[in-house]
Amino acid sequence: MIRHECGLLGIYGHEDAARLTYFGLYAQQHRGQESAGIVSWDGEKTCEVRGMGLVPDVFSEEALRSLPGRTALGHVRYSTTGVSTIRNAQPFLVRFQGEDIALAHNGNLVNTRELREKLEADGTIFTTTNDTEVIMHLLVRAMRTRSLEDAVRRACEQIKGAYCLLVLARGKLIALRDPHGFHPLALGRLDNSFVFASETCAFDLLEAEYIRSVEPGEMVIVNEREIRSERLRGEGLLPAAQGRVRPRQCIFELVYFSRPDSIVFDEQVYLCRKKMGAILAQECETDVDYVMPFPDSGIYPAVGFCQQAGLPYEHAMIRNHYVGRTFIQPSQTMRSFGVRVKINPIRRMIEGKRICIVDDSIVRGTTMVTRVRKLRELGAKEVHVRISSPPVRHPCHYGIDFASPKELIAVRYPLEEIVRKLDVDSLHYLSVEGLLQSVSQPENYCLACFDGDYPVPCECK
Amino acid sequence: MIRHECGLLGIYGHEDAARLTYFGLYAQQHRGQESAGIVSWDGEKTCEVRGMGLVPDVFSEEALRSLPGRTALGHVRYSTTGVSTIRNAQPFLVRFQGEDIALAHNGNLVNTRELREKLEADGTIFTTTNDTEVIMHLLVRAMRTRSLEDAVRRACEQIKGAYCLLVLARGKLIALRDPHGFHPLALGRLDNSFVFASETCAFDLLEAEYIRSVEPGEMVIVNEREIRSERLRGEGLLPAAQGRVRPRQCIFELVYFSRPDSIVFDEQVYLCRKKMGAILAQECETDVDYVMPFPDSGIYPAVGFCQQAGLPYEHAMIRNHYVGRTFIQPSQTMRSFGVRVKINPIRRMIEGKRICIVDDSIVRGTTMVTRVRKLRELGAKEVHVRISSPPVRHPCHYGIDFASPKELIAVRYPLEEIVRKLDVDSLHYLSVEGLLQSVSQPENYCLACFDGDYPVPCECK
Amino acid sequence: MIRHECGLLGIYGHEDAARLTYFGLYAQQHRGQESAGIVSWDGEKTCEVRGMGLVPDVFSEEALRSLPGRTALGHVRYSTTGVSTIRNAQPFLVRFQGEDIALAHNGNLVNTRELREKLEADGTIFTTTNDTEVIMHLLVRAMRTRSLEDAVRRACEQIKGAYCLLVLARGKLIALRDPHGFHPLALGRLDNSFVFASETCAFDLLEAEYIRSVEPGEMVIVNEREIRSERLRGEGLLPAAQGRVRPRQCIFELVYFSRPDSIVFDEQVYLCRKKMGAILAQECETDVDYVMPFPDSGIYPAVGFCQQAGLPYEHAMIRNHYVGRTFIQPSQTMRSFGVRVKINPIRRMIEGKRICIVDDSIVRGTTMVTRVRKLRELGAKEVHVRISSPPVRHPCHYGIDFASPKELIAVRYPLEEIVRKLDVDSLHYLSVEGLLQSVSQPENYCLACFDGDYPVPCECK
Amino acid sequence: MIRHECGLLGIYGHEDAARLTYFGLYAQQHRGQESAGIVSWDGEKTCEVRGMGLVPDVFSEEALRSLPGRTALGHVRYSTTGVSTIRNAQPFLVRFQGEDIALAHNGNLVNTRELREKLEADGTIFTTTNDTEVIMHLLVRAMRTRSLEDAVRRACEQIKGAYCLLVLARGKLIALRDPHGFHPLALGRLDNSFVFASETCAFDLLEAEYIRSVEPGEMVIVNEREIRSERLRGEGLLPAAQGRVRPRQCIFELVYFSRPDSIVFDEQVYLCRKKMGAILAQECETDVDYVMPFPDSGIYPAVGFCQQAGLPYEHAMIRNHYVGRTFIQPSQTMRSFGVRVKINPIRRMIEGKRICIVDDSIVRGTTMVTRVRKLRELGAKEVHVRISSPPVRHPCHYGIDFASPKELIAVRYPLEEIVRKLDVDSLHYLSVEGLLQSVSQPENYCLACFDGDYPVPCECK
Repeated sequence: MIRHECGLLGIYGHEDAARLTYFGLYAQQHRGQESAGIVSWDGEKTCEVRGMGLVPDVFSEEALRSLPGRTALGHVRYSTTGVSTIRNAQPFLVRFQGEDIALAHNGNLVNTRELREKLEADGTIFTTTNDTEVIMHLLVRAMRTRSLEDAVRRACEQIKGAYCLLVLARGKLIALRDPHGFHPLALGRLDNSFVFASETCAFDLLEAEYIRSVEPGEMVIVNEREIRSERLRGEGLLPAAQGRVRPRQCIFELVYFSRPDSIVFDEQVYLCRKKMGAILAQECETDVDYVMPFPDSGIYPAVGFCQQAGLPYEHAMIRNHYVGRTFIQPSQTMRSFGVRVKINPIRRMIEGKRICIVDDSIVRGTTMVTRVRKLRELGAKEVHVRISSPPVRHPCHYGIDFASPKELIAVRYPLEEIVRKLDVDSLHYLSVEGLLQSVSQPENYCLACFDGDYPVPCECK
Repeated sequence: MIRHECGLLGIYGHEDAARLTYFGLYAQQHRGQESAGIVSWDGEKTCEVRGMGLVPDVFSEEALRSLPGRTALGHVRYSTTGVSTIRNAQPFLVRFQGEDIALAHNGNLVNTRELREKLEADGTIFTTTNDTEVIMHLLVRAMRTRSLEDAVRRACEQIKGAYCLLVLARGKLIALRDPHGFHPLALGRLDNSFVFASETCAFDLLEAEYIRSVEPGEMVIVNEREIRSERLRGEGLLPAAQGRVRPRQCIFELVYFSRPDSIVFDEQVYLCRKKMGAILAQECETDVDYVMPFPDSGIYPAVGFCQQAGLPYEHAMIRNHYVGRTFIQPSQTMRSFGVRVKINPIRRMIEGKRICIVDDSIVRGTTMVTRVRKLRELGAKEVHVRISSPPVRHPCHYGIDFASPKELIAVRYPLEEIVRKLDVDSLHYLSVEGLLQSVSQPENYCLACFDGDYPVPCECK
Repeated sequence: MIRHECGLLGIYGHEDAARLTYFGLYAQQHRGQESAGIVSWDGEKTCEVRGMGLVPDVFSEEALRSLPGRTALGHVRYSTTGVSTIRNAQPFLVRFQGEDIALAHNGNLVNTRELREKLEADGTIFTTTNDTEVIMHLLVRAMRTRSLEDAVRRACEQIKGAYCLLVLARGKLIALRDPHGFHPLALGRLDNSFVFASETCAFDLLEAEYIRSVEPGEMVIVNEREIRSERLRGEGLLPAAQGRVRPRQCIFELVYFSRPDSIVFDEQVYLCRKKMGAILAQECETDVDYVMPFPDSGIYPAVGFCQQAGLPYEHAMIRNHYVGRTFIQPSQTMRSFGVRVKINPIRRMIEGKRICIVDDSIVRGTTMVTRVRKLRELGAKEVHVRISSPPVRHPCHYGIDFASPKELIAVRYPLEEIVRKLDVDSLHYLSVEGLLQSVSQPENYCLACFDGDYPVPCECK
Repeated sequence: MIRHECGLLGIYGHEDAARLTYFGLYAQQHRGQESAGIVSWDGEKTCEVRGMGLVPDVFSEEALRSLPGRTALGHVRYSTTGVSTIRNAQPFLVRFQGEDIALAHNGNLVNTRELREKLEADGTIFTTTNDTEVIMHLLVRAMRTRSLEDAVRRACEQIKGAYCLLVLARGKLIALRDPHGFHPLALGRLDNSFVFASETCAFDLLEAEYIRSVEPGEMVIVNEREIRSERLRGEGLLPAAQGRVRPRQCIFELVYFSRPDSIVFDEQVYLCRKKMGAILAQECETDVDYVMPFPDSGIYPAVGFCQQAGLPYEHAMIRNHYVGRTFIQPSQTMRSFGVRVKINPIRRMIEGKRICIVDDSIVRGTTMVTRVRKLRELGAKEVHVRISSPPVRHPCHYGIDFASPKELIAVRYPLEEIVRKLDVDSLHYLSVEGLLQSVSQPENYCLACFDGDYPVPCECK
């Protein structure tokens, strides 16, 4: 399974701040199901509740009431490292010289090791394995002699990689995206308060109005009196000679991660996915009885694919809506249970049919193998697979956890071998060019997982 | 919300009986989310575990291990009466003269009151408000002087209404459907064991082979040596003069309840729903930009509708897959939260568009009102609604809990008024004739909720 | 471990009835730790909450609020049969011909099998293995044609053995003890309401005033207008010729079960236990350095023993107050862990000392063996054991669960052999005569566990 | 309620290290009921489990299995500051330059504020409000250039106040007590492994052999090959001119905190408490019918008091063994519920009696007031109170949480006024001299809470 690292939510100046943060996290639950946390500030004290599990499991009504104030910060998290303990749950909150500083982070740094070593050489000790703690240390050090804004800027000069940050300190809420803008962060308004969220589906649930994306390299500062925007700038960060860094936004947000009802990087995700499907249909001939998505990720490109190809759309694999809860071990006679329990093909739609499957991506290929095998067992005459993104061939250093490179099917085998492994009659991936045609500013995206061109080189941890 | 009364699962002769029952219930979780129970029998003793909540919440690995034996019976339940206590959880298990008798029931009797009064006059006392306990008393009384089969037959002569039963006693598992066959019950085979389930999606998960429906008025008996079929028959039940009763299967199973991947009443539910959508498209002109289902129930008729009408299918309302867990109270500023949290329309697909919504039914109309209002707010130019079943105008006495009649929108208002209440540009329901064309044996269905023609008159409780 | 069967609490006419019942059960938690239940009645409807576990675990504030009304009935329960399921939790509540009938029972019948067979022959089916369900069936049958009082009387004519009952039906609360009065039941007053409890320690917590014991064979009826007393009487029960049955109250309530702060059978338990200890001291010479109880049961006779013998009292075994919660398996190196974790002797008090241990009873002797061995290991010079009751040699048929007869140490071995098995320097049990001297009405007690003289013969189930 | 700060357990070289740590904490549960934690080390990796609540609630069998290795460290904790979050649960574990360092602390520093400010000025940030984190930072800084032993010594030179520490790092387990030895720490042996515990009752449960106390100012180092002892020494810590610091052990450990079955400061706690009671009896005339302890704390001095005074001992207040679990709110009619629910006097022992109550201490006096009032209500003729320690008049800076000074009854009122407030016939406290006679090395104790003479001045936080 592909896993993302986080979802953020920040709100400044609303009497129901913690509750709204809760629902803003709830709407972004797909971005992190391992832990959740909220920090609130009521003008005097800073309170926090964090816990393992889904948002509704972490926060009770009583927990919400322990989070007073008009400003709040929230975080949902996946672990990409396998270390999933309560220590690592965010937001990260510390007290330094009488000040409370809270920090929530979405992304992944590439120079963590170097920074940790430097900080440790200076006597810093770490209680977590989070990048966030590293950023916090840099920030707090900088805060000793600087304004909050300058301190944030100084910290950002030192870190490399992908980071969307929400900082709550000194009565201000700061939201920023790294200069490449790897991950999304949107600005919205709710009554007289300002809201930040990784995805705009959170605004929809809160009934907040979407204003715009926080821009790559932009820092938005909100306090009691004003909201203003500054640029991250400075020698380490953006050398004058180079001018502004070219944005390199994560195209996988559009391919897979973000909810289709979100606006991300100023793109309506649903429309991008439909377009990917449509271009995919143009790139290859497909002669089948009907087109079927793997739900739910394949639905949106499949819709575009069908409309372009003039082929009938069928929704002939049914998803079990109760999956997600843990259950007991299956009987040994139940083969491929983990895959089958999630989705069930409709037998009378499969037998004797020539079927085109649409999905957004293939990573390791194991799920695809099992599902195609099931379709064959049910009597499918032909199975053609169409993937609305190029083959994933490189690891992501900026916050997405694909499998390890040697598990990636497109690394392990050439295309014709993949066709054999999957036992399909044909297989087409969307081309990189096709993918870029699906978005409005093709030059502003990171495609490293497809082409290995890393905008920020990794100093592997 | 429309609610059903139950799902059944029975298995005879498999070494992993309780575990398979668990997964068979899990696949049928949509038929009852309030309580779950399993009774197992190991040739000597009968064990039970029952509890409130979803299947994975009720049964731990430890609970499963406390259910030994090669035969098991399972049940998931909704309360239609509001009395949801552990007492009412099924299967119902009693001990009588040294025998253990377990009973699981799906359906609703119409002469419960009369039967309770008669039994009480005879000294019977009741510990639950379940129909099941009434059936159990009739069964046990009959068992004093009869074989199990005769006793079941005798009990069935006395009860009226809808009942699928699984009985475990005297080393036998009996499965039966009432003579009208209101609710579904299917027979399958897994290795050398026999399995019964309300829906065949349970067979798919267990990898059991579907054999056929248990027929209306049929009783299937399984024991160590054989499986055989008998007819429920007798003066009270099937007067010789009348011959066999005409089946009256619940068409709402095909419209809404059953999972589309199930075969129910020997119909593939998915295909029926597509056909309902296609006939609906024939019955009315629809000039729109695209067709959109309310997920997930509207998806299947929408697919048929689009194919028939030649209109584009869009999946432009997104369902939140984490809904279902309880969460804290929303902020007072979050209007219509309960409806909105489940589903979110994609704004850029709505504005300026002429949209046709397809859904399976309208009951009270409250959800539809809220959703249409949302589409209007997002700038929809026209909203047309197409419903793949006729207006629900009558209560069901056989196990479906619609709202009370006076809450039904089609009872409260004439069609043109509903159009105004919903604020839609047009509204069409599938005709009764159209609905019947969607199924292969139209004469064998109960349409009471649409036409008020009750096959078994209710002696209202 | 010796286990008792139950504790009862009933209250009529107090606005906080369920809450007071909760605390009345809480004070009697030692009488049953397996399940707890409360039934309340508000003049119209009857509500219930029952669950497995301790009183504070079963009832939340929310549960309490679901129990409205000025009348309530409560029960705490041990299982003596090993079948501990929620089904068996009391009070037992049924609905019959529109009436709700609730019943709580403390005790054990000796003719259950016969009654069950008779009822089953009549068509009654049982959902539990409780005696209580049998009594309920008899009661409900009788209620068809009789007043509640007459029906209770009629039911009591049929049952044999030990029973304290609380019945809530037809707007009345009835409390009664069987004619032999095996188990205790006390009547108290709180403001304008009446309260019944197995032990008066419940009254102390509620600040209710103790009035008197319900007498053996007495039935106290409370309704809105009055409280009155009647005798259980009738051919089956108390043949005119015999006059009143001689009470046979369970002396083990005074020896061990009841809390020392309770008044039971109109005896202050603490004073009885001290007197048992004092008479024990008279019955045998004891030349030791000091006397030490096994806490807590041995404390009270030890206090009396010391005062009589003029020997110093030491409290040199310390009880761990956190025991009772479940914990993980001990390491294999931790011998006799289960015994040692509860109690720890103070080493510097043991070495080289001649010690007299006082405890209330020895049943199987396993705990005593382990504890004496520990004292020997710590260097005790002499260990003398004094037991404030006679040897337990016979099973109880009336509600106390000693070990099975063949496990009883006093059945397995003669006295001198017990001395060897326990590895003690001397051992004395209180004589039956001594025991009877400790109570004010010696003729009114059942001593069956000591002498095998059963007041009501058992028709063993 | 008086609250202590912590209990420690460390074990080096036993295959069942984590499990034994669990039980060692379990035996010391009275020293901290708010959170518990265990860190284990298996030669390569360091694992931890921490949680809120009692030991059995925090650690499941599964949690134990996640703590491999032959070395472990455990901690139980009270919060003295009201901030009881999972962040503050110990042991504290950090990673620094590839090393894992775990630290458990019992005690309270007096120069925390100064140290935090100094560390913060140096850029250190804090994630908790624990003293332990401060010590950890000092330790880790020192470890950069020193051996573990030297680093520990260096850290200890900087901290002032009370501290027992267990440190696990670099393959070693270090146990130490501050130079004054405020709190206890004992060394034991189990098979071939070494064990440290705050109290020896932990050794008894583990069946470890008690060797001796770790001495004030001593540091015991255990590794794979050896166990050795060093002195904390150095300019900051123990100026050459001064020679060794005089130990100032917390006498309240002997008065109240430690379990009576423990050996603490090489004293058998039970014997000390008896002696306090005996000297108390010598210090004042007491003419009463009998002596009664408030259980359980008053039992041990009462035993000594009775033996000295030749007065009868009675155990006439009964403790409810189920208290400790949370329960619902009492009815408003239940006055003083919180006090009464814990303990119930035996009415027939009180009426008309002249009673001497023995308890270990009076802090705020509120419990005493309520209990004496109850005895008066039950008809006590005279109530005399004897306290086996002097009046508590000063706050403790070393880890004991009495009430705030202005709540202390002995601060608020002179003796004769206390007598009136408590409504007792007479009141005697043990004198300071009497208290010191009860211990074998009277010069080695801290009496600050009685006399205000603070061995280490507080730089109040």
